[in-house]
Amino acid sequence: MYLQELLKPDGRKLTLYSRCPIAAGIQAPSPGNEPIQANPHLRWHPLRGEWVAYASHRQGRTFMPPPEYNPLAPTTNPEFPTELPQGQYDIAVFENRFPSMAVQAHDPPHLIVDTLPANGACEVVVFTQDPSKSLSNLELDHLDLLLQVWGDRTRALGDQAQIQYVLPFENKGVEVGVTLHHPHGQIYAYPFVPPVPARMLEQQQAYYQQHQRGLLQDLIQQEIADDQRILYRDEWAIAFVPICARYPYEVWVAPIQPVPTLGELTQEQRRSLAKALKTVTLKFDGLWNRPFPYLMAWYQAPTDGQLHPESHLHAEFYPPYRTADRLKYLAGTELAAGMFANDALPEEKAKDLQAVVVNLAESAYA
Amino acid sequence: MYLQELLKPDGRKLTLYSRCPIAAGIQAPSPGNEPIQANPHLRWHPLRGEWVAYASHRQGRTFMPPPEYNPLAPTTNPEFPTELPQGQYDIAVFENRFPSMAVQAHDPPHLIVDTLPANGACEVVVFTQDPSKSLSNLELDHLDLLLQVWGDRTRALGDQAQIQYVLPFENKGVEVGVTLHHPHGQIYAYPFVPPVPARMLEQQQAYYQQHQRGLLQDLIQQEIADDQRILYRDEWAIAFVPICARYPYEVWVAPIQPVPTLGELTQEQRRSLAKALKTVTLKFDGLWNRPFPYLMAWYQAPTDGQLHPESHLHAEFYPPYRTADRLKYLAGTELAAGMFANDALPEEKAKDLQAVVVNLAESAYA
Repeated sequence: MYLQELLKPDGRKLTLYSRCPIAAGIQAPSPGNEPIQANPHLRWHPLRGEWVAYASHRQGRTFMPPPEYNPLAPTTNPEFPTELPQGQYDIAVFENRFPSMAVQAHDPPHLIVDTLPANGACEVVVFTQDPSKSLSNLELDHLDLLLQVWGDRTRALGDQAQIQYVLPFENKGVEVGVTLHHPHGQIYAYPFVPPVPARMLEQQQAYYQQHQRGLLQDLIQQEIADDQRILYRDEWAIAFVPICARYPYEVWVAPIQPVPTLGELTQEQRRSLAKALKTVTLKFDGLWNRPFPYLMAWYQAPTDGQLHPESHLHAEFYPPYRTADRLKYLAGTELAAGMFANDALPEEKAKDLQAVVVNLAESAYA
Repeated sequence: MYLQELLKPDGRKLTLYSRCPIAAGIQAPSPGNEPIQANPHLRWHPLRGEWVAYASHRQGRTFMPPPEYNPLAPTTNPEFPTELPQGQYDIAVFENRFPSMAVQAHDPPHLIVDTLPANGACEVVVFTQDPSKSLSNLELDHLDLLLQVWGDRTRALGDQAQIQYVLPFENKGVEVGVTLHHPHGQIYAYPFVPPVPARMLEQQQAYYQQHQRGLLQDLIQQEIADDQRILYRDEWAIAFVPICARYPYEVWVAPIQPVPTLGELTQEQRRSLAKALKTVTLKFDGLWNRPFPYLMAWYQAPTDGQLHPESHLHAEFYPPYRTADRLKYLAGTELAAGMFANDALPEEKAKDLQAVVVNLAESAYA
């Protein structure tokens, strides 16, 4: 992995990542030159016992720009700079122009509930320079690089004392509200462990204390023995519709042996995870022969300086469709009660995805 | 409040509620005569530590029927029976034909995670016989009756030993996935306290033990003193954009003094809550001069036979729009991490709604 760190005219950081050495002298552009003044804050939600982030500048963010301007493509017309420079690199990461959290946030308002500066970070990860690609048609060693990039960002962000948790994710498709169609994801780095990963860690810690083994590690072994919902499996990685899927086409991707964070993956594990990722996204796109929207999130151990032997890195995909023409809306029971009601059995949806034939041979490692 | 309990040909219960006595001899219709065979089950999600409901029959449920057939209107053509009979009544409640939970559910499958029969209940509440109405244009004493109906259903469902929690809610608008436009809500009755109300109860219990006062009771007093986000207030009820709103136009409606459940409201509190409800929904519809979609949920004490002095009944409205033409999608940070990022300050959105002038005079109590 090669990388080059640059600074944009507005003060934001840009890091270029590549499978090959990157030429010197690249200048980082920005759609705007004014310094970023983001000052988001957190308010305590006393009834739910959780933090909510407020960043009132975000309403004006880019929304469905005309086709000739793609802020995530390399700049071609210097009159209309994008977020990325020309040059030979595979993946780029930069600070979000309209962040929900910012390391420099300060002086939160005094309110009737507790407040804090939202001292986190929001980064954009551009997966490739090619706007027509998606995870399903990137080369395996490009996906391998992406796993390294997520690991590098987790380390770089997690090394900051105020960052407790790093979540790489991808929102894909207009159905999940994506405003820019260039293949990209985001990384949110939080100054606390957010409620969902906190709950998962609690469950994993309790299980680990009782069994001296990982909860997900054992669940994966049970999924392998049950052999009904598996979409991909090799020596190091697995992809499956989990037995407790909340979304009809929910899929989890994980190393078979527990690894706490993205940065700790071995080369073998990364290569297998790249194959699992490509298999899953190809099956998704092949299911109805069209791009398949989803939210993908990577859960890993907190960056709190503690050891987390209970934590088992994995990705969860939440696709919004329940059939080819019907969305699963989150409504009363999901959003208000927190109990998901799934119209479909995971075994049935796994069969649908198992039936989509995928050939990784043509996209083997370069 | 007058009520009449009927049985549909397929074995489902129908209860008619009215402000006036209901004539005898009404027959309950049903769109189908075959007995309902729902047998949903729950699976334990070990990583999240929560139950997920599976009801695989639900994919075939009614979806955008042609305009001439409205299953929630009274039956006019006996060849195409709907869910409701002709007759003089205001509100009707019946068991969902395609429930996510059912009291008669039995023999859950043996799987690699724990399972249970989904011994809950799912009811549909038809707010009025008039398909063109909504909560905003029902008479105040019709809304008062609706609060009594929710209270009666909470009691009737909660009296069953297996029911631990009753959640009345309304999904309104195509934006939140509503397939039937006739004004209606739902009631889900759970065999456990679901994760979100469980978390709220924990927070309220901890506060109550420390202060011998209610958490929401004190927050309401702070909102009154702060006087920035209030939309309606009288002696008994209040409506406000909460200081910790997760959705831009989130609104809470509550009695000012703590009341654990809907059935325990006094007549004065109900009348004030009806005014608050009508004010909020009129302001919503008036904001952009069009029907305003939302999810509305009523949080109350569990029906577990315990006293819950810490619990403070209230409704939360989650509108999906962040501006007139932009939806707030729940994406990576909301769905995967559980931290909401709100583009707007609650103070600003409260101002928007405060500016919508509402006149309750013409819709005074009949």
